[in-house]
Amino acid sequence: MATQPPVIKVVALCGSLRKASYNRGLIRAATDICKESINGMEIEYVDISPLPFLNTDLEGDGTFPPEVEEFRQKILGADGVLFAAPEYNLSVAAPLKNAIDWASRPPNVWADKTAAIVSAGGYLGGGLGQFHLRQIGVFLDLHFINKPEFFLHAFQPPAKFDVDGNLIHDATKEKLKKLLLSLQKFTLRHLI
Amino acid sequence: MATQPPVIKVVALCGSLRKASYNRGLIRAATDICKESINGMEIEYVDISPLPFLNTDLEGDGTFPPEVEEFRQKILGADGVLFAAPEYNLSVAAPLKNAIDWASRPPNVWADKTAAIVSAGGYLGGGLGQFHLRQIGVFLDLHFINKPEFFLHAFQPPAKFDVDGNLIHDATKEKLKKLLLSLQKFTLRHLI
Amino acid sequence: MATQPPVIKVVALCGSLRKASYNRGLIRAATDICKESINGMEIEYVDISPLPFLNTDLEGDGTFPPEVEEFRQKILGADGVLFAAPEYNLSVAAPLKNAIDWASRPPNVWADKTAAIVSAGGYLGGGLGQFHLRQIGVFLDLHFINKPEFFLHAFQPPAKFDVDGNLIHDATKEKLKKLLLSLQKFTLRHLI
Amino acid sequence: MATQPPVIKVVALCGSLRKASYNRGLIRAATDICKESINGMEIEYVDISPLPFLNTDLEGDGTFPPEVEEFRQKILGADGVLFAAPEYNLSVAAPLKNAIDWASRPPNVWADKTAAIVSAGGYLGGGLGQFHLRQIGVFLDLHFINKPEFFLHAFQPPAKFDVDGNLIHDATKEKLKKLLLSLQKFTLRHLI
Repeated sequence: MATQPPVIKVVALCGSLRKASYNRGLIRAATDICKESINGMEIEYVDISPLPFLNTDLEGDGTFPPEVEEFRQKILGADGVLFAAPEYNLSVAAPLKNAIDWASRPPNVWADKTAAIVSAGGYLGGGLGQFHLRQIGVFLDLHFINKPEFFLHAFQPPAKFDVDGNLIHDATKEKLKKLLLSLQKFTLRHLI
Repeated sequence: MATQPPVIKVVALCGSLRKASYNRGLIRAATDICKESINGMEIEYVDISPLPFLNTDLEGDGTFPPEVEEFRQKILGADGVLFAAPEYNLSVAAPLKNAIDWASRPPNVWADKTAAIVSAGGYLGGGLGQFHLRQIGVFLDLHFINKPEFFLHAFQPPAKFDVDGNLIHDATKEKLKKLLLSLQKFTLRHLI
Repeated sequence: MATQPPVIKVVALCGSLRKASYNRGLIRAATDICKESINGMEIEYVDISPLPFLNTDLEGDGTFPPEVEEFRQKILGADGVLFAAPEYNLSVAAPLKNAIDWASRPPNVWADKTAAIVSAGGYLGGGLGQFHLRQIGVFLDLHFINKPEFFLHAFQPPAKFDVDGNLIHDATKEKLKKLLLSLQKFTLRHLI
Repeated sequence: MATQPPVIKVVALCGSLRKASYNRGLIRAATDICKESINGMEIEYVDISPLPFLNTDLEGDGTFPPEVEEFRQKILGADGVLFAAPEYNLSVAAPLKNAIDWASRPPNVWADKTAAIVSAGGYLGGGLGQFHLRQIGVFLDLHFINKPEFFLHAFQPPAKFDVDGNLIHDATKEKLKKLLLSLQKFTLRHLI
């Protein structure tokens, strides 16, 4: 009797706070794809907007503000992370960096988890920001998948999203599925 | 009769929000040095803590929230920028990135200004974070001085700061003065 | 009687060694544009292929191999540098990095010069490599122009180059001219 | 009867070509440590100095110059890579980048291997160069270990190397051993 591989828990974070965010739309699409057609992996979206700005004066005797503590527990319980990372000014969006920094405060709850990045944007499609995020991840001890890369040029035709930021482009959904399968395979290696 | 060079206006921003921040201490020291021993340059500290997280839903018809608008006007009125940039997880601190992103919203108010970076920190003294900031600056159209570099290893003896985060180390003050003079000279080139 | 601004001397280096290199083609086009329609700036192409690999054992008593010495003198005599920088594996091509490193050996002959980068390539059009080059330039004390950026997606229609690597696309030539004018203006600021 | 884990083959490359290179000394030390006290891992030093500068005109009908072909076969046969990567001008040394680029030519022989980086140097101990190498590795599909990091400040007392570039500092040898064990463990995850 073959043993089942463990069910992988992935938390998904979005760097953009606007309501109709394309990057947030990528997370919704990834969650749907995962439910519908990937066995053994679950994605949970974690909202980072309640977090205050990082300020270590808010830490007292090794405790964190309640929103921060709750966020840290979510990260701690995950096997992998899906970052939806818009590129702002060639780097990482501040809300995402803020969430990352809170969860890195000792003890660093990112350590030894796997990660993947998706970006929707203009310019180079988010490429520069993703590489800043990867550098940050070295210090956090995150293991990123390399392939497939996912930079979505959101403003080139055909339309990729509807007005609410929902992904409506089948080829992109297919690409997103490939990325999720790659993250799953990579995470299984690291769980053993 | 020789014409006087113009008085250069520099705004100073700090990426750390904690009260006794060493990076904030570097700005206070720079401001004092400027007043006491540099003619033709003024430094104004601009507090970034009132800014909300970047969210373009907060923009309406080309207007910004009042704190953002006030911040943008401060940047717009300056010739140069002094960034006190702690390195968090090998990159820029979220509060600073957030301020940068708000001021980059169209019309980008950073364009064609000069800049210098100082960092106090552990690890590589802030080096990695400074290079992320420089990359961001390319998109903002900031012109950074190259020399002298200023990475302060804050936790190696002798003590560089007192418990309130005030810079108390003379050799570091001297180094800071050299950086300010370099920024002044560089800015004069760009003002012409 | 108005004084003429000085004639700016620019050296142009190409990171690709292949005969029909598109990046080399960008330098030829820039040279032609400069001759035909920009007053006060001259571009000289400097071939980096004769340089040996950097090896400080080849330096004796502060002397360099003759090819290196000749190369260093060319850089020293210039006001600005035009880098034609293909992106290989998200970074700078080795032949170009090698030339840069030789000219940085003490005394660093790049110091305080201005620079601009053009790239023709696939992927993100050379974007990632350009940002590595900019980081290198901080240590060299080069001052890069920020705008206009020049990343040419060489393999998307319409054809940009002929089979010999000559630039044949008028809109790209126009863009190249704007970059050269920006470098000229920026260099004049720094020469004063 | 327990199955033995496979013996991991690691190739080691050095970015510095000088005879008494400290970075080359790190590879010799790693090789000795591996022989003496690590079961199940072998390190083979691969000399990159015979390689010509990358020039795709040297490729004919999918063939490479013999030195390049031999180098590519060495990489192809390895499970993991140990890079001894000096930092030149805040980035990767040209000879190392050149070797990397040759082995990345289609078919890319780096794909899905593991890697670790050690650096001996001045400045920030090689930190900036290592992060450029990691970015390059994303495109190559290399999987780098995150911890322990290995930046050796070679010029600070006590002496770390003798005049021939041999590592003579026990604490550094211990650190090097930890890095090798981390690479071994990480590679075993990826071999499965």
